[in-house]
Formats: sequence, C-alpha cells, structure tokens
Amino acid sequence: MASVQAQQAGATKKFTLVIHGGAGTILKKNMTAEKEKAYQQALNQALQAGHAILSKGGSALDAVEAAVRLLEDSPLFNAGKGAVFTNEGKNELDASIMNGKNLAAGSVASVTTIRNPITAARAVMEQSQHVMMVGPGAEKFARQQGLELVDPSYFYTEDRWQGLLKVRAQDPDSVALDHGNKATSLLKQPGNRDDKYGTVGAVALDMQGNLAAATSTGGMTNKKFGRIGDAPIIGAGTYADNATCAVSCTGWGEFFIRLSVAKTVSSLMEYKGLSLQAATNEMIHKKVPQLGGDGGLIAVDKNGNVAMPFNTEGMYRGYIKQDGKAVVEIYKN
Amino acid sequence: MASVQAQQAGATKKFTLVIHGGAGTILKKNMTAEKEKAYQQALNQALQAGHAILSKGGSALDAVEAAVRLLEDSPLFNAGKGAVFTNEGKNELDASIMNGKNLAAGSVASVTTIRNPITAARAVMEQSQHVMMVGPGAEKFARQQGLELVDPSYFYTEDRWQGLLKVRAQDPDSVALDHGNKATSLLKQPGNRDDKYGTVGAVALDMQGNLAAATSTGGMTNKKFGRIGDAPIIGAGTYADNATCAVSCTGWGEFFIRLSVAKTVSSLMEYKGLSLQAATNEMIHKKVPQLGGDGGLIAVDKNGNVAMPFNTEGMYRGYIKQDGKAVVEIYKN
Repeated sequence: MASVQAQQAGATKKFTLVIHGGAGTILKKNMTAEKEKAYQQALNQALQAGHAILSKGGSALDAVEAAVRLLEDSPLFNAGKGAVFTNEGKNELDASIMNGKNLAAGSVASVTTIRNPITAARAVMEQSQHVMMVGPGAEKFARQQGLELVDPSYFYTEDRWQGLLKVRAQDPDSVALDHGNKATSLLKQPGNRDDKYGTVGAVALDMQGNLAAATSTGGMTNKKFGRIGDAPIIGAGTYADNATCAVSCTGWGEFFIRLSVAKTVSSLMEYKGLSLQAATNEMIHKKVPQLGGDGGLIAVDKNGNVAMPFNTEGMYRGYIKQDGKAVVEIYKN
Repeated sequence: MASVQAQQAGATKKFTLVIHGGAGTILKKNMTAEKEKAYQQALNQALQAGHAILSKGGSALDAVEAAVRLLEDSPLFNAGKGAVFTNEGKNELDASIMNGKNLAAGSVASVTTIRNPITAARAVMEQSQHVMMVGPGAEKFARQQGLELVDPSYFYTEDRWQGLLKVRAQDPDSVALDHGNKATSLLKQPGNRDDKYGTVGAVALDMQGNLAAATSTGGMTNKKFGRIGDAPIIGAGTYADNATCAVSCTGWGEFFIRLSVAKTVSSLMEYKGLSLQAATNEMIHKKVPQLGGDGGLIAVDKNGNVAMPFNTEGMYRGYIKQDGKAVVEIYKN
C-alpha cells in the first residue's frame, strides 16, 4: 500500500513543457554559431520560465502563456516582436490558447497593436463569452482588459523587413493565384520557407494532470487580404483536451486548417486508440505531406509523453520535465 | 451482368442536397401561418435551385453555393440580407465552403460589404493561395475578384434591428463577462435564442460522388469586439471529405469551435467507424450539450444518407434527392 501511495504521489508530481519556435528550411550550414546560440538561449529561457511555474505546482495554462510570451518578446521568432511583414508592410498577429481541463479556448487574429497576442487570447477565453475575436474589435477588447498596447512600429525588425523585400522581389505580382500553385513554387525554393514560416507555441502537462496549448504567429511573409493561418484556429493550430493531449502546430497553415490537424491528433487518440507518437506521425508524416503541405507540431499527452515531429529541414524545439533538464534541438536528428 | 451494370449506373445517378436555415427556439405557437409559409417557401426555393444543378450532373460545390446564396438573399435568415446586428449596430458576415474531393476550403469573416459571403469564400478557395481572409483585406480581395459589393445598409432589416434593441435592453452592460455565464442566462430566456442564433448552410453529394459543404451567417445579435463564431472556421462549422461526409453546423458557435464539431463528425466516421447518424448524434446530443452549448447540424455521407440532428426547439431544414421531392421541416418531429 505504502509503495502504491508513493507511486501515486510521485505520479502527480510529474509535469512536462514542450515548446517550438517554428519549422522551416533550417539548415546547420546556413547558421552562424552566434545565431545558433541565440536561438538555443531563447528557447532555454522559455523552458526555464515554464519550469519555474510548473515546479511550484502552477498550471499548464500559466506555463504555456509564460513560455509563449518570452518567445513573442524575442525578435528571433515570427511572433510578437520579430513577426514577419504582410504585403502591405504591416505586422498582423494571430494567437490562440486552450485549456484541456474544460475545453475553454480563446483566440485573436489580425491584431496590430497588442504586444503579447497570447495574453489577449487568454483574456478572450477567460474574460469574454467568446472564443475568437479579430481585428480592431479584438484590440478594443484588449484595451478594455488593460493589456499592454504598443505602436505598430514596436514589431519592426530589420531582418523581417529584408525578408519581405526579398519575397516581394521574387513575386512582384500582386494578383492572387490559383490555389497553392504559386505558393508551392515559391516555397519550394530553399530559403523561402524559413522566411515564410515560423510560429511559436507551447504545450504543457501540470502536476494536477491538466493540459494546455498555446500558439502565436505573425503568419506568412507577404500575406495579403487579411489572410489568417492555422495559429488562431482552435482545432487547426491549437488544441488541448485532458482526455487525450495538447497540440501546437507550425507550418504551412492552409494545410493545417484543411486537415484540422491539432484536433485530429486528439481524435486519433480518442477514437482510433493511437499513441501520441503514432497520432502525430499520422498527421505530420502522412496527411499533411499527402495534401502538399509541410510543417511540424509539438504535443504532450496526459501521461507526459512528448512528440515533436516535423517534415521540414528543421524545427526550433525543446522540452523540460520535472528533473529540470532542458532539451533544445534545432535540426533533424 | 446487365443488372449489375444497371445498378452501378443507377448508383452513380444518386445525389442529395440538405440545407438548414438555423436552429433555435423555433416554436409553432410563436409562428404565424404566413411566416411559416414564407420560411417553407424560401427553403423550398433553395432546395430546387440545388436540385436543378445536381440533376444535370452539376457539382456538389455549385449546388451548395447556389442554395446558400438564395438563403443569404432572403431576409428571413441570419446570413447576407437579414443578418443580425452587432453591438455597434453593424452587420458583420462570416462564411466558409469546402470541397470534399480535394479538401480545398475557403472562408471569409467579419466582412460588411460583400453581398454574398459564400461566393467570396469560394473565391478565396479557388482564386487565392489562402483558406481564410478577414475584414477589409477580404473585401479588397472580393473587389479584385469582381464580386458584388453593396453598401452596408443593404443588410438592414427592421426585424433584426428590433432584435438588437431587445437584446440591448436586456443586457445594457457592455463590459465583457465571465466565460459563458451571462450568455447562458440570456440565452436561456425563451425568444433570445431565436434572435441570437441562426445561420444558413448546405451540404451535398453529387452524381460523381463528390461532397461539399457551405455555411454562412451574421453571427450573434449584439456580438462585440470582432467576435467570430464557428461558421467561417473550417473544422468547426464546415467540413467536407469524400471519404466520410459533408457537415454544416448552426448554433452557439463558441461550443462548436471548442469541439471542432464538423471535423469531429468526420473523424468519428473515419476513426471510430460510426455511421453518419451515430457520429452526428454523438456531437449534437452528447458532446455539445455536455459542454453547455446547443444547436444543430446537417450532414450527408458518401452514400447519400442524411442527418439533421438538433437539440434546440426547432431547426429550419430540408433535403432533396434525385426523385425531386423536397422535404422541408421546421419543428421537432
């Protein structure tokens, strides 16, 4: 009996945080030692911030929000500060968050003045009767909630501006093209994916057995017409259900929406009885590439198992568990 | 052999169109004979328009778009002309469409000048590399595509304006409230649901065995902050996959997003082997009410089976098959 109780007590002390900083054409040969170190440091910081919360018995929700806020604040990632530019030279940000305990969810899309979109998404979840708010309406809500607003110029980074100029030079044609064709040809050129993709996200399991997921992005470089990707779409880029898993996606968002990737990972576990590994592999290594898309995801299940599959050259990613050892990876293993 | 061939030929001639005009507190005692007739007529017209396309071998995609356009143009339904008003006294429209043949999808949200949002959603699907566009960006795209734009006053109807004034009188407090609480109490008052809900949709199976789904809405009366419901969210309000079914939802959108209702119906068939009836009942009679939401959906599977479950007092709905007999229903059976 004593050992069973000890085991159970031990079991409840388990926690896990997994994060990503985007998938794309991330190759070691294109990386300087300095840049590599900066990415590792930023990912480590985000993991440590989440660990500090989870190790004190804090909630998965608090941990994923804290981790994503740090990634949003870092100019290295395509979310918050460091977001890519739209065709109009603006930064339009999307984010979503979900609580696996009660399936509560919140999301904001196409916002341009909210410093931390993930915190706005959480406010939508907890302080409104809605799940998703877009554009100026979402910003009005954020203002009423007392969230930090910034001048749009806050999001400017020279790297991302150059990224826009590069993509524009390759695709000066502003007319919309056949579904996916032009995007395909452009994205197949090495280097473009890295510029066009990128999203940050976090998923966590806390000591209470609750799961949470969060995703934040600036979307695709040169996006037009108020385009929204999968990051703010509950079920596509983000999902969490204590009964199964928590998932945050990154990649070519259109394909993740068309397959409802995050929710389908959960459904594969719930309805087909797949493991987290098998369910995430089914989506990232089969369904998404079959449709012509690419990207990756991070996921944690109710037992603390971690999955970080991607079908691109690399994905900024990492995880930390109760032992406090942060694991950070960038390239293919 | 001859009879097998005849059967096969006969099998390929099968087609089905199902439509809905919203779920809510629709009670016979609150309906005038005149109003009832107007609804039946409008639903019939939409079914006949789709039938005319499908019976000539036209595509499921063309049929659902045509049916939804007619429902958008009718002032009786909360979509297009006749859309409900936001808290700011505007009409913000959302729509989405999906092709089960190739999982292509398109969606627009928070648009205020596009006469037929469903046609804009189709243009996003077929004429852009994106799946979802919101706000002024989506309108700019619609303009470039040559779609019909109207002055926002086109969407005004006296009935819906009175609906806004009524809800405002009951809920003058413009501060956002705890998740779902105030909405619950308001929506539990008879009459409110009818005003707050309403969406139109269509799903179809064509002679070629292709499925398609379309949904269009004005959202919830008195909605604030650029709120988006499930209608424009692929996977939540709309989904179509030739391997399983086509689904269009209506109801309290927040709950449909949190459960990815449309895609999960498809997943229940694909991964759990449920029939269309069992899969749709699982969502509408179990998952959605368990979470505290309500509404309904229409669905058709690859064999032409029809499901139209709802857990509200009524749902405007109907279907038509190759025999050309339109079935239209409003109340509980």
